[in-house]
Amino acid sequence: MKRIYIAIAIIISTTTVGQEADPSFVQKIFQKSLGEQQGYYWLKNLCEEAGPRLAGSKGDDQGVMWAYETLDTLGYDLVQKQLVDVRHWERGVETATYIKRDKQGYRMMKKLNITALGGSVSTPGGNEGKGIKAEVIEIKNREDLYAKRMELKGKIAFFNEPMDPWLINTGSAYGKAGWQRWGGASEAAKLGAVASINRSLTHRLDDFPHTGAMTYQPGVKKIPAAAISTNDAEWLSKELEKNTEGIIHLTIGAKDIGRRNSNNVIAEIKGSEKPDEIILVGGHLDSWDLGTGAQDDGAGVAHAMHAVWLLKELGYKPKHTLRIVLFANEEFGLDGARKYAKEGLEKGRKHVLCIESDGGSGAPRGFSLPREIHDNNPSMIKALDKLLARYGCREWTQGGSGADVSQIVDDGVLLCGYRADSQRYFDYHHTSQDDIKSVHPRELELGSASIAAFIYFFDQNL
Amino acid sequence: MKRIYIAIAIIISTTTVGQEADPSFVQKIFQKSLGEQQGYYWLKNLCEEAGPRLAGSKGDDQGVMWAYETLDTLGYDLVQKQLVDVRHWERGVETATYIKRDKQGYRMMKKLNITALGGSVSTPGGNEGKGIKAEVIEIKNREDLYAKRMELKGKIAFFNEPMDPWLINTGSAYGKAGWQRWGGASEAAKLGAVASINRSLTHRLDDFPHTGAMTYQPGVKKIPAAAISTNDAEWLSKELEKNTEGIIHLTIGAKDIGRRNSNNVIAEIKGSEKPDEIILVGGHLDSWDLGTGAQDDGAGVAHAMHAVWLLKELGYKPKHTLRIVLFANEEFGLDGARKYAKEGLEKGRKHVLCIESDGGSGAPRGFSLPREIHDNNPSMIKALDKLLARYGCREWTQGGSGADVSQIVDDGVLLCGYRADSQRYFDYHHTSQDDIKSVHPRELELGSASIAAFIYFFDQNL
Repeated sequence: MKRIYIAIAIIISTTTVGQEADPSFVQKIFQKSLGEQQGYYWLKNLCEEAGPRLAGSKGDDQGVMWAYETLDTLGYDLVQKQLVDVRHWERGVETATYIKRDKQGYRMMKKLNITALGGSVSTPGGNEGKGIKAEVIEIKNREDLYAKRMELKGKIAFFNEPMDPWLINTGSAYGKAGWQRWGGASEAAKLGAVASINRSLTHRLDDFPHTGAMTYQPGVKKIPAAAISTNDAEWLSKELEKNTEGIIHLTIGAKDIGRRNSNNVIAEIKGSEKPDEIILVGGHLDSWDLGTGAQDDGAGVAHAMHAVWLLKELGYKPKHTLRIVLFANEEFGLDGARKYAKEGLEKGRKHVLCIESDGGSGAPRGFSLPREIHDNNPSMIKALDKLLARYGCREWTQGGSGADVSQIVDDGVLLCGYRADSQRYFDYHHTSQDDIKSVHPRELELGSASIAAFIYFFDQNL
Repeated sequence: MKRIYIAIAIIISTTTVGQEADPSFVQKIFQKSLGEQQGYYWLKNLCEEAGPRLAGSKGDDQGVMWAYETLDTLGYDLVQKQLVDVRHWERGVETATYIKRDKQGYRMMKKLNITALGGSVSTPGGNEGKGIKAEVIEIKNREDLYAKRMELKGKIAFFNEPMDPWLINTGSAYGKAGWQRWGGASEAAKLGAVASINRSLTHRLDDFPHTGAMTYQPGVKKIPAAAISTNDAEWLSKELEKNTEGIIHLTIGAKDIGRRNSNNVIAEIKGSEKPDEIILVGGHLDSWDLGTGAQDDGAGVAHAMHAVWLLKELGYKPKHTLRIVLFANEEFGLDGARKYAKEGLEKGRKHVLCIESDGGSGAPRGFSLPREIHDNNPSMIKALDKLLARYGCREWTQGGSGADVSQIVDDGVLLCGYRADSQRYFDYHHTSQDDIKSVHPRELELGSASIAAFIYFFDQNL
């Protein structure tokens, strides 16, 4: 779909940006955020009360209830749930044992730390079945997959491409190595493999496997897909150098349960001058099932709730309608975002700016901006930088708004993303370690304040 | 002492800065740093082999030995120890019990998490004595100290000014609240107090007391000085609101042992064009005694060793002499720095630029620069920013080089400091929590690479 930016481009180019943004008000935002720790309190509460929030699970229900009830006490002009139909998948047993032949015959060598990928089918017989036993072939990268294309028949493919340590932004390294998890199973299945395991997507060497969504290509046999920890990937790689006949016994009980109900949770403050124009700030309520989703994306939920609350508590009367949207099921198909973007809440209102936080609770680094601002409006970036650089927020990159808000295609909408410091994010992402202990209150709340200031700036300048 | 900057100012103003700095070489520095994790390995090794390194302690000796032996394997043109006479103080027993009167008489209410401040005298009788029992008076800030000046006679002063949460750089908040620890005891003693306790210097609410140096004013009675954890400070403050007759029983066994030997450890690569002009990079080897000093200042030691090693391993031939100096006893009187600055190593050589890392292992934010560059040489800052901003290193502030290198007053020397992200530093600073677990390898090594690039830039441009 082609987006039409003419309207907003005219607005931006004819506005004297930055004139109206008051640095002392931005200072108050930061002081309120750092002084009270409201965001951290909410996040801790969400993690404790709802726990893991896999789409369609009981925790997901509890997350929705927590968000609705919390927002409902804060005096907004609207607090509403929007029903969303979500895919629901459940984890079952998951074991992987490496077996090796020695003089006494085949013998168990090592249990691997493993987790099924989201969407994986089970091994035959599911939780009660005997699993799959097959020789394992290491695939080091895409070229290696091609080179070993004749060897995979009947085997377990072991994708082992580490995240590139040389990329400063760890999200870029995640994107680059992500093909193994997203699509490795079908690539391997096309070549006759019976199952697929991949190295967990993190720079860190540890024992925690990282789950995450995977997809099967239409028409290709669905084979079980799982991730092993980085320590185990390193170990297995070394072992396979010495012994090319290693076998893995894999049991995966995961399965699709069907569709269930979840909800987007929405709250707003009506705009005083342009109530039909919406500035949206969002995160997603769902998480993976292994941890309590404090980083992914409890931090985004806390940021969105906290940023708007800060403006409200400081008595700020927005010109545009400020809307918090906590999306359902980002992790497993963007169901909430698609529903919200397609149906919205009502007719006759449009989004002018949407911002998402879905990169964890790290200290602020900056914001990603759409091309209309990044390339075509240097004075706006200069004004933003003048307002926010003193708080450590100085990176103004092009693109990458976050998956949920990227579904919103209203004419001229500006899609932006909050960029937290990325170095620690993939230590926790999609693991049992993604919990409140990984969150630093001040880092989280510098983020909320940065987002509140960003919203304030655009509310003044659009 | 007045510093003469004329020589260097002329050099700077007549140099076309940034022309010679090669961004692709800087990229190689970052790739080598992030790819190999040499700095993290060294830091882990130092923490494990030497452990806590309080000046004059066995751990301090082991730290010196570790540094000398490690540097000695790396092929530098010079590796040398420089003997330093250091003050040695030792911790003894330390207990604090809050006691309250109720209907049954005085009764123990709560044991407080406490640590003696570095340099504190003991309570009477030291480890074997009965300690001090006295009523406790809370002092909320400097004004409150004045207001309660008539109440302190015979009492224990409880300084409880939290670090200001509104300051974005936590080091500034530390500086602002630090008077309680540095000088609280003598201020209280002048008013007749018998002991002094202070709230630990950290934003975080937890159970870990933070030690650190304190000084007695000449001619003022020396009273015991200790810090309690922030959770206990909050608890005690609330308790004293309800009950103004609370008593604390304090036992502190700490004492000065006398002078001992320690060493600065020094290594260098001789300059190819200006061997008599030194670019120095340093940190301090000593730490407090409660943790293993991974942040303070193991990170600085690792940064200095790693930054020069990166340049060396990449085959870089410096124009100036590059010198690593790991200083002795920064925490307790700057003995190593004073000795180094006063006596140097030999005659006829001078320092042109010194940089210190003493703010922990956080991700790079930028560098502090002397006024000659910061205020008078915007083109140099622009060139540095062009080279380093892509790595998240973009804050160029004036002043604050680090205590050790600030002792060096060679004519025209430029004193600079590495600025790591500061949000987590005071969670660990001077506590039992300051250990390798608090260090993130990538953050540490982005720092080493930033410092190496900074050195490279100035080696090219001075």
